[in-house]
Amino acid sequence: MVNQRRLALPNPHLTEVTEDFLYHLGLTTHDNLADMFRDIKFIVMGGSSTTMLEFAKYARGELYLPSDRLENLCRSERYGLWKVGPLLVVAHGVGAPSITILLHELFKLVHYSNATNVMFIRVGTSAGIGVEPGTIVISENALNASLRKEHRQVVLGQEISRPTILDQVLAQALLMCQNDPNIPSMLGSTLCAEDFYEGQGRLDGAFCDYTEEDKIEYLRRAYTMGCRNIEMESCAFSSLCHRAGVRGAVVCVTLIDRLQSDLMSPADVERYDELVRRPHQLVIKFIKRQLGLKIKENKSLAQATSTPPTAIQPVTS
Amino acid sequence: MVNQRRLALPNPHLTEVTEDFLYHLGLTTHDNLADMFRDIKFIVMGGSSTTMLEFAKYARGELYLPSDRLENLCRSERYGLWKVGPLLVVAHGVGAPSITILLHELFKLVHYSNATNVMFIRVGTSAGIGVEPGTIVISENALNASLRKEHRQVVLGQEISRPTILDQVLAQALLMCQNDPNIPSMLGSTLCAEDFYEGQGRLDGAFCDYTEEDKIEYLRRAYTMGCRNIEMESCAFSSLCHRAGVRGAVVCVTLIDRLQSDLMSPADVERYDELVRRPHQLVIKFIKRQLGLKIKENKSLAQATSTPPTAIQPVTS
Repeated sequence: MVNQRRLALPNPHLTEVTEDFLYHLGLTTHDNLADMFRDIKFIVMGGSSTTMLEFAKYARGELYLPSDRLENLCRSERYGLWKVGPLLVVAHGVGAPSITILLHELFKLVHYSNATNVMFIRVGTSAGIGVEPGTIVISENALNASLRKEHRQVVLGQEISRPTILDQVLAQALLMCQNDPNIPSMLGSTLCAEDFYEGQGRLDGAFCDYTEEDKIEYLRRAYTMGCRNIEMESCAFSSLCHRAGVRGAVVCVTLIDRLQSDLMSPADVERYDELVRRPHQLVIKFIKRQLGLKIKENKSLAQATSTPPTAIQPVTS
Repeated sequence: MVNQRRLALPNPHLTEVTEDFLYHLGLTTHDNLADMFRDIKFIVMGGSSTTMLEFAKYARGELYLPSDRLENLCRSERYGLWKVGPLLVVAHGVGAPSITILLHELFKLVHYSNATNVMFIRVGTSAGIGVEPGTIVISENALNASLRKEHRQVVLGQEISRPTILDQVLAQALLMCQNDPNIPSMLGSTLCAEDFYEGQGRLDGAFCDYTEEDKIEYLRRAYTMGCRNIEMESCAFSSLCHRAGVRGAVVCVTLIDRLQSDLMSPADVERYDELVRRPHQLVIKFIKRQLGLKIKENKSLAQATSTPPTAIQPVTS
């Protein structure tokens, strides 16, 4: 029997609040959050609203849910929020500040709605380091641009370093769902940059003060430390999920190998849409296993076992 | 006569590039950027796509331009880009990483399109410090969350501190356009945070390890250093505009006074839409003055003097 674990909010000030506003979601505790969200088990998030809406439609089909119109439940204009049965599909924008705001409000949403054992999974595209374009990298660690496993925050003027710990059991469980021999897949560390150009050592920004050799030296250093891809949110994501005591995973596909090129090859541009979907397909396979739904089996979600023997346990620490 | 100054790109690598991709705008130098954008003189940007599209429609009316359908010229799904005569209206998302990517690509767009003397203005909402809600704050300085006038970047693993210098002439010229006695307006320093919750000393995030007294002490310290409002992009914006040698300004309205409350008053929630428009109205007044268009005068843009005596000169340093 899986222990039903509710998300606790480690903020003593919230106990004094009569109505709590999730400003950027446009929701408050005066909405009936429990009715709206109590049954969610997975929050799957990615940068772009368009891509995440596509993911929501794909998930709906794979989970045999009715093809009703998907309503954006985010009442503010900043983010995207779609509910697909036990999934909440979310668009988080670009970079750490954007995803940080969202995670604060999602943790509150999960808490107030009394949802239990909710896992957080980020899906996205990334640049590869020393791996073939199209590789799925499931993050074991997140390193910041200084190549340290830390997320730095400034709180009341003081710089604080927080560990970027990802759930190794969840990462392994995701990898085990990947059984397509045509899609290279691995666990690896992820380099989390604060910018796409100078922050990732690219030579084609508006500014660049370093050489190709400097760039390669930096990327090789990251490779030696286990980094296999680069994106822009994994440090904030892993640090905040760890702090909230929820299972978190980052699943990205690589579009290029930065040790070879800064540009996607024409063949990879051609198959861009297919590459973007690779993490989505893997995550849906995982979710179906967790829900006890067999792939291609025409079985409604209501009939599925909700706690199958293969389900991984919630965090108990 | 105003000197026609083109934006130079201080990146020696770009001279070797045959096609340059502005990935996040979905444009390349094989598009005819000069035909599309050569006539732009003002880039006005803000966080939200919905708000900036509203701004674009408002600007179109105020500049007496035909009310054709406004097409989002950003071919990727990340940002928003609408052209309104000599204005480019842009949505930049939330936080420094998001606006940094966009500025790299906008500087390249301005360079490749041969547009000259382009000014960059960010408009937005903000939290106030010790000023009445509804106040327009035009930023004289941008301070990071450590209360230093610097923008920190990590480039190839090394932390670099860059100055956050804003154009004082442009800030003054904007303030001089504000002649509505019912709208308090001022020059002030802007505190640029990396997050909405802990990063701005709020007590109502999912996490909070400090007290109300700690929070007030931090905000008072910021006030003493001249800060009158808080937002999340001014450090990256000012630092990058200064580096690119373009005039840059940040014009925000305050929604609350953080020394009094962390929540908007019901009366301010009621007039939220009107508050959001305050910086828009001021910036349009300024642009009309620059273009020699008189307010409410039914004169087409083509007939207007393009370099009136009141026009401020481009940066010459």
